[in-house]
This record gives sequence, C-alpha cells and structure tokens, in this order.
Amino acid sequence: MRASQPRRPVVDLTEAEARLKLPLKWGVPDGVLPAWVAEMDYAVDPVVLGAVQQVLADGITGYPTFGWDAALAESYVAWSGRHFGWAPEPRAVHPVVDVTAGVRLAIDVFSGPGGVVFPTPGYNAQHGLARVTGRAEHLLEVPPSAERAEIDLDRLDRLFAGGAQTLLLTQPHNPWGRVFTRAELEGIRDVVLRHGARVVSDEIHAPLVLPGAEHVSYLAIEGTHDHAVAVVAASKAFNTAGLRCAQVVVPDRAGQLRLVDQPMSRNDSYSPLGMVAARAAYDHGDPWLASLIERLDEQRTLLAELLGTHLPEVRMRPLEATYLAWLDASAYGHADAAAVALQRGRVMVSAGESYAPGTSGHVRLNIATSRERLTEVVRRLARAWT
Amino acid sequence: MRASQPRRPVVDLTEAEARLKLPLKWGVPDGVLPAWVAEMDYAVDPVVLGAVQQVLADGITGYPTFGWDAALAESYVAWSGRHFGWAPEPRAVHPVVDVTAGVRLAIDVFSGPGGVVFPTPGYNAQHGLARVTGRAEHLLEVPPSAERAEIDLDRLDRLFAGGAQTLLLTQPHNPWGRVFTRAELEGIRDVVLRHGARVVSDEIHAPLVLPGAEHVSYLAIEGTHDHAVAVVAASKAFNTAGLRCAQVVVPDRAGQLRLVDQPMSRNDSYSPLGMVAARAAYDHGDPWLASLIERLDEQRTLLAELLGTHLPEVRMRPLEATYLAWLDASAYGHADAAAVALQRGRVMVSAGESYAPGTSGHVRLNIATSRERLTEVVRRLARAWT
Ligand SMILES: Cc1ncc(COP(=O)(O)O)c(C=O)c1O
Ligand SMILES: Cc1ncc(COP(=O)(O)O)c(C=O)c1O
Repeated sequence: MRASQPRRPVVDLTEAEARLKLPLKWGVPDGVLPAWVAEMDYAVDPVVLGAVQQVLADGITGYPTFGWDAALAESYVAWSGRHFGWAPEPRAVHPVVDVTAGVRLAIDVFSGPGGVVFPTPGYNAQHGLARVTGRAEHLLEVPPSAERAEIDLDRLDRLFAGGAQTLLLTQPHNPWGRVFTRAELEGIRDVVLRHGARVVSDEIHAPLVLPGAEHVSYLAIEGTHDHAVAVVAASKAFNTAGLRCAQVVVPDRAGQLRLVDQPMSRNDSYSPLGMVAARAAYDHGDPWLASLIERLDEQRTLLAELLGTHLPEVRMRPLEATYLAWLDASAYGHADAAAVALQRGRVMVSAGESYAPGTSGHVRLNIATSRERLTEVVRRLARAWT
Repeated sequence: MRASQPRRPVVDLTEAEARLKLPLKWGVPDGVLPAWVAEMDYAVDPVVLGAVQQVLADGITGYPTFGWDAALAESYVAWSGRHFGWAPEPRAVHPVVDVTAGVRLAIDVFSGPGGVVFPTPGYNAQHGLARVTGRAEHLLEVPPSAERAEIDLDRLDRLFAGGAQTLLLTQPHNPWGRVFTRAELEGIRDVVLRHGARVVSDEIHAPLVLPGAEHVSYLAIEGTHDHAVAVVAASKAFNTAGLRCAQVVVPDRAGQLRLVDQPMSRNDSYSPLGMVAARAAYDHGDPWLASLIERLDEQRTLLAELLGTHLPEVRMRPLEATYLAWLDASAYGHADAAAVALQRGRVMVSAGESYAPGTSGHVRLNIATSRERLTEVVRRLARAWT
C-alpha cells in the first residue's frame, strides 16, 4: 500500500487472452477491434485476482454478511484518505451491488419526486435511470462546441427552479474526461443549496485521475453532507466490474439511519466476491494502480500523437481522467461516425448519440489497450473517416 | 445429467468448514448453532464449484455479455423440461442478479400501480418489497390454526376487487413448505383472470421438492402466459446465492419485448460467475441434486422423529419442499419462541414474527445440516422451550 512498496506492472493482454477474459468488450466479430465498453485490455492485478480466487478455494459461494461491513468500510476509508486527502467516516460507507444500482438506490431513498438533472454527454447506461426511479430526466447539455466541458450553473439553476430536485453528478466525468475543480464543485453546491436540491455523485472514475489533475469528492466540499451521497468503487480501475460490489457513501447520520431502515430487498445483491475484490484493491492495490496511471498517461500522450498524425481534424478536449476519450469527428462529415468506424474501419467505438442526442459525429474511444492496438485503432479510424 | 450418471454425494461440513464457507449463516456467537438463513451446511457440488473456479482461473472478472443469453436460457430450458416435464421457450429466460431483484423487476415492469398481495407467513426478506416498488402491500394470512396452508381464494378475490393488481406467489412456498397442486394453481389463475391481475411466481425452491410432491410452475398452467412471469434460480438448491444470477421467465412475446426495451440500469447487475454457476448446475448438477433430495428427505424424517420425542407439542404441517420447517411452538407458551431458543437454547432460528405479524410463537427451522447437528438443535430447542 505504501508508495515505497515494489510496483506491480501492467500486463497487456494478447488478443486471444482478451477474448477469453473480456467476453463483453471482445464479443465482436473476428477482425473487429473493440474500443467501446469501459474495460481495459490489461490483466487484473494478480493480488486482487488472487484474493478472489482464494474465496472460491475456500468454497465461499453463499450470502455475505448483510448490511454495513466494518472491514470494507475501513478499507475504503483508509484508501480514500491516502489517495484524496479526505475520507468519510467508516459508518458512511455501505456496500451495493454496483455503481449504477447505487445511484438508483440513492435517488430512490433520498431524493424528492422531482426530476433528475443529467449532464450530457452522459454515461450511456445511465440514460433512462431517472425514469427507472419514476422521475423525469432533464438533460443539461454541454454544447459540442464548448472549449471546456462544464456544468452551466445558470441552466442548472433554472432546472431546479422548474422543479428538478436531484443532480446526477459524475466526478470525474465520463465521457467528458473532466475532473471538476474544488471551485467548480463549490459553484454547483451553491446552486444546489439555493434550491434545497440533492446531489448523487458517481465517483467510479476517481482512482483514474491522470497526472495534472486531482480528485476532489463532492463530499469533501463543505456544506454538502446533508444533501449528497457519493457512489464509489474499485471495480473500474481494477477491471472487476463483473464481481459486483460498489459502495455508497452516505455522510450524514440521518441518511445512514434512513438507509439502514430500508426493506432488505432494496439493497442486498452485492456479492461476497466483489466485496473481497474491493477490499483487496483498497488495501493492496496501490502498487498496481500506480503503474496503471503511468500507463494510461502514456496512452493519453500516444493518442494525442496519433490523432495529430492521422486525424488532425478530430477535436478533443484534454483528458484529465479515465481512459475514455471523447472525440469530435464531425469535421469529417459523417452522419454516424461510429457506424462508419465499424463498417469501414472495423473498429467498435461507442456511438456519441448514446451519450447525448445530436452527437452522432462524436464517438467515445477506449484507449486502455496495448500501444500497438491503439495505434492500429487510430489508423483504422483515419482510413474509415477520411 | 442423465439419471444413469454416477451420483455425487452430499458432503457435510464440519463446524470449522461451515464457519469459513457460510459467513452469514455461521456469523453467530461461539456456541450458538445456526438454523436460520436458507443456506445448507453441505459442501457445494464440486462440479459447480469447479466451473466457477475456472472462470477466475481464466481471469474473467469483467462484464458478462448483456441481456438475453442463449446458453443460459437453453441450459435452463433443458433442465426444466427434464425435471418438471414443462419448459418455457428459450427466449423467455432472462438473467437477473438474484431472485428478489427479479421479483422487483417483474413488478416494476409488468404490474399496474395497484397493491401487491403477499400471502403470509411469507419470506421475510420480501416483506416491504411492494413498498420498494412504490405499491401497497396486502397481507393475505394463512391462519396459524389452519390444517393446511392454502391461499384463501375468496380473500384473494376481495383484495383484487379492492384494487390490488398483483399476486406475489411463492411456489413451492417458503416458509409453508407447501407445493401447490395443479388444481390449486388453476383456482388462483381463475381469480386472477377475473380481475385482470398479474402474478409473479417466485419458484426459487422448485428444485427442492421432496419425494411425494411434484413441482408445477405457475407458467405451466393454461392461460397464464399473458399475465404472469416466474423467477427461477439454481442458487438455492446449489448453495450459490452469493454468486448472483437468477432468471426471470417471461413467457409471452409482448412481455419479452417490453423487458428488452427497459433502460439498461433496470437490470444489469448479474455476475458472470453466477451465470456460469447456474449453467453448470442446470447442465451437470443432476447427479448431485438427486443425492441432496434424498438427504433432505432423510432430514425431514429425522426432524419428525426428533419432534415426536423431544417436542411433542410442536405443530408442524407436512414438509413437501424446501429444507425450512415452519414450527408452531405456541403450545409452550413463550411470547417470543425464537428469542427463547437463542437465549436459553443457543440456537439461532428465524423468528416467526418476521414472516407474519402475530406469529411470535412460531419459528422457521433450517434442517439442512448434519444429522448430529439437527439432533442437537432439536434437543436444545426442547431444553429451551419446555
Ligand atoms: C460514470 C460511470 N458510472 C458507472 C459505471 C458502471 O459501473 P457499474 O458497472 O458498477 O454499474 C460506469 C462504467 O463505465 C461509468 O462510466
Ligand atoms: C422464496 C424465496 N425467494 C427468494 C429467496 C432469496 O433469493 P435471492 O437471494 O436470489 O434473492 C429466498 C431465500 O431463501 C426465498 O426463500
């Protein structure tokens, strides 16, 4: 855990390995390169994988202990303190099955019936989540032409004034690649406070902040504890989303009591394997994560070079976090850039349209792969688009 | 899979093994015998466990393929046909994270806003589920004195007439231990049809029907397909509830389309490990399940003998399915039979009160343990209660 521990390297997967280990991402036709869903073509940290294998070696396949889990909470708290210089109290940290389920839970349990503000382009699988909770969904777009992807506080203010009661914040943001600054978060808080609204802060990408930026949890901002919860996980940074455990951080006592008071069926689907994976990542994952961040930083540089060479008309804002780049390819004039990438380039990227209506000239590109594959991906995109 | 395959035995866990492998059930103070949550003190079928271990040996920790899964559906369909003489079409069978989440999903997606009828005593973790879906919960009690645990069709009729729109059926029933007959299910269907209501049939215990009874899925009853879904799983019979995959069976095409049309966040939490466990159990589990059923049949006989000897005043209806016995200990006059069992007998049973208000003289007893432990449990209950 200490910075002085020997590093564990990031190991690239061969194509055959990736096909075996990442059935969703690599479930593409032969000859297609997948650069879509947010999974990395790297071997899972052997320490995390070993911890999970030990669970099955022990024959543990049944229910985990129910509800708040001291060990999990303390692992997260220590990790958060080390990485972000801020941590909730252990009592705040509760297991949930995954991040999106945690967001749903937080809205269901804590939010008023008014609509949910969802900044777009926004994580595609959370479009429609407001509807699942029985609430209206208000998209708050970043205009594609904006220099910087920011939440428009005036529009946020108007949406709350019009009846919305919750902001679904993604911090760091996918697919913007942004890390909100403390000042930006304070600005958001001020608007939220003015309307007595709530915030659910999806912080799944917090471990993936790249050199140059710093993660600040929305909960680390003063005056947020009685109106906000965060949803956090080790699963995205450690490639273990299938193991099924995220954590919801409920900072205030009243909220904790309210959560614990819910019917069991509201939140009892987390897996013991996911809980062990999370703890192993938080307790022992730093020497691997440090290598990953270095590697993603290199991938980011490589991407910039490749785009400069092969796709100079693509616009891309600086990637501050995540391994997911938001590319504006509209200069190349394709009605559906992702479809053209697949048909002509044999590259599967995520279609812009699934993150925001009207962005079919954009795609989201996953750069967490080998250098060779990323190079080939950009070359193919260039052949397809230009 | 064929009956002619060599049987695999049921292996009893030592206390040390059980403590390791079943952290929830055995998370009891030293000296207390756990006979509460529905997990079995038997080793997981090695074929099922081996299949799941292979997933991690392969390093698969990421997302499973999303949505309908042909292999899983076909495994279930073949298994259902073999065991119950009836099966849905493969297209009907969709993964969900667990059974209770599947019940919630089914109500959320298919039911009208009217209340949910929940026959009681009813599975404790599903009390409050109606509320989680935003609906009223109408308890439909079996009077403790009833000779046979049956759904009162007149009361069901009145509840539907009063605005309820969904019946949450548990077939076989926990904690009644009942297997509804075809005639009973037809009677329920007739009432449901009269009111245009819906049924969600939780059939998690279907693999655990004991000799003398036969499982009939509610969906195997004529005229149910446009108003009912079943939620099924291998997880209860194979002790793999922590691996997180159940299946919702949606028999009609319109329902299938409606399910597939939901926002992804409605149902994307199943684990690839759970999916593999389910397939291994359905494809290869029969030679172990046959041993389990024999063993549970013996446990049932042993329980009857032990009760006759040590607790002659306990009333118990015939146990037709499950390893969960519903004991009426009210003749012994304790205000809270479960609390007395724990304090004076050092046995953790499930409190009747959590299954139905007003049944604190009842307990649910889990008999899926070693012969010696079951014997000791009943002896301790006798010392505590008499
Ligand atoms: C912002 C965001 N939230 C949530 C998720 C998914 O998390 P989970 O699978 O735990 O629901 C992702 C996946 O990429 C994401 O980008
Ligand atoms: C009737 C019934 N449904 C559901 C469950 C729990 O299933 P799951 O853990 O898959 O939600 C149980 C557990 O004993 C049960 O008895």
